[in-house]
Amino acid sequence: MTRFSSLADLRAACLNLPFGDDHAASAALARQDVLTKPQGSLGRLEEIAAWLARWQGRAMPALNKVEVLVFAGSHGVTARGVSAFPAEVTVQMVANFSAGGAAINQLAKAAGAELKVVPLDVERPTADFTVAPAMTEQEFLAAVSTGYDAVSWDADLLCLGEMGIGNTTAAAAVAATLFGGAGIDWVGRGTGIDDAGLKRKAAVVDAAVDHHGAALADPLMALASVGGRELAAIFGATLAARRLGIPLLLDGFVCTAAAAPLERLESGGLAHALAAHASAEAGHRRLLERLSMKPLLDLNMRLGEASGACLAVNIVRSALACHTGMASFAEAGVSEK
Amino acid sequence: MTRFSSLADLRAACLNLPFGDDHAASAALARQDVLTKPQGSLGRLEEIAAWLARWQGRAMPALNKVEVLVFAGSHGVTARGVSAFPAEVTVQMVANFSAGGAAINQLAKAAGAELKVVPLDVERPTADFTVAPAMTEQEFLAAVSTGYDAVSWDADLLCLGEMGIGNTTAAAAVAATLFGGAGIDWVGRGTGIDDAGLKRKAAVVDAAVDHHGAALADPLMALASVGGRELAAIFGATLAARRLGIPLLLDGFVCTAAAAPLERLESGGLAHALAAHASAEAGHRRLLERLSMKPLLDLNMRLGEASGACLAVNIVRSALACHTGMASFAEAGVSEK
Repeated sequence: MTRFSSLADLRAACLNLPFGDDHAASAALARQDVLTKPQGSLGRLEEIAAWLARWQGRAMPALNKVEVLVFAGSHGVTARGVSAFPAEVTVQMVANFSAGGAAINQLAKAAGAELKVVPLDVERPTADFTVAPAMTEQEFLAAVSTGYDAVSWDADLLCLGEMGIGNTTAAAAVAATLFGGAGIDWVGRGTGIDDAGLKRKAAVVDAAVDHHGAALADPLMALASVGGRELAAIFGATLAARRLGIPLLLDGFVCTAAAAPLERLESGGLAHALAAHASAEAGHRRLLERLSMKPLLDLNMRLGEASGACLAVNIVRSALACHTGMASFAEAGVSEK
Repeated sequence: MTRFSSLADLRAACLNLPFGDDHAASAALARQDVLTKPQGSLGRLEEIAAWLARWQGRAMPALNKVEVLVFAGSHGVTARGVSAFPAEVTVQMVANFSAGGAAINQLAKAAGAELKVVPLDVERPTADFTVAPAMTEQEFLAAVSTGYDAVSWDADLLCLGEMGIGNTTAAAAVAATLFGGAGIDWVGRGTGIDDAGLKRKAAVVDAAVDHHGAALADPLMALASVGGRELAAIFGATLAARRLGIPLLLDGFVCTAAAAPLERLESGGLAHALAAHASAEAGHRRLLERLSMKPLLDLNMRLGEASGACLAVNIVRSALACHTGMASFAEAGVSEK
């Protein structure tokens, strides 16, 4: 038995979402205004403090447990020649994660975060979504449930990321489905595909949207039909974070596309999430604009794996350190304006 | 006796600067290309690794000792009503730094950095530079020397910052002097001055440029005439970092303006420095453009104190963690393109 045994179940869990603790957020902002600095001079760090307060439900938030979840999945659409790397790299990289040799291992450690890698049937690719739904309803619900249940209830901050050769094509298909536009508007070079490959990716996205037609009108069906298991799991984890009161850092294009259906199902569905960075993957900026999300970082990264989210953890930690550690004007005997 | 006993001495130290270790930088980039990620996918983190390698002179750099220097100075020009805060706040904030209550105390700790605050005659403001040189030649050389000698020879990375009510006016005057333009092009709201104050600031900058005239043609004289002691010290520390082979993170507008004369004296004089962030202070972006520097962060901060530089330390640490900790394709048994 998976947590969500039907689409109706899952849909119900996506509605009437909690909107965080207004009082805690206001109290945090009020505190920021009396700390020894010109009001507003810490910029986004002040907003981050209030965001942590809102979603943790306390004016003085904490970051004792920062959890990083990296979901991995394999994609049938790789048969269409949409990636610069062979499909077996997904499984090889999962092994690299386990051995501690990937970027995310180093970045999670540098961020003081606990890394958990969750492979989702990586030996069994999803169907090629240009000719069939990527997942059956049961496969989709299982992946969403796995993602949901992977989130620790006691995490203070969650970072989501992914690995899956072919998944920028899936993300582009999901984005095109949710927000309109042609394949070429959403595809990018992924791990480094050439011009001909980029055209193939765009055509694959167009073919997928064409093939599934009206089924894609429902954001959940869109994710099931042209997404992938790791995208479904990210969606589930995004929902879990919201229900559990855990602020969330989204990584790049794939991660944002996977979470986006929650915003489409209910406006403000991603209010608990910050975009950690603007990826160099072409469609990401467009997607962030559609979601009205302003990325924290812009470092020309395009790796995935939650790499951008982990970098942003350091920013969030710094914001919290100022919020909890600074003296007020009164405490420090500093004159005000 | 100060380190630099004449302007000629100082000028000589600013020429024929070392340009870092090409071999170490190339070796670092070559290593980045075999690590388990698509080439270039860590974006600026890869550039940072090579930058550390170049200036530390080793393909595998380290960050054992990260030093943060915050220089504080008092400004006679505050008599002109250019700041939203009273001049005594400079001394009060130095006390706040000592007590550990300021933003920079928290941010340095979060970055694993050693903070050293260096007050420069804060009880004795510089002259009002609209009517006289801010510093005499000897005062200027003393401040530059103090900054130079404050840098630890064994630091692996240096962050520079400042505190000084009135110093965004000094920075605007320095920038206008070095790069042209009127006061209004360079002034911003500093700690939060109103519209009338902003106009006063612009007029003060114009008056200063007018008053000093041809003396400002020399970048060192410009810094002495319309700068301030903490700006002179930042200049000295910037020069020391270059001579000692220490990569440098510059903070916001004041810090960048203080370092800029080195670039004006010799092209590439700031090659060892990265702009940590784009400040919300109006003139900073313009100044970074003139210096062809691309900031690492853009978080709407405008506090100074090396706050942006300390935030960026975390990014540099993450870049280094990937550089030294990741496995290569061969080591991890991951297939390449």
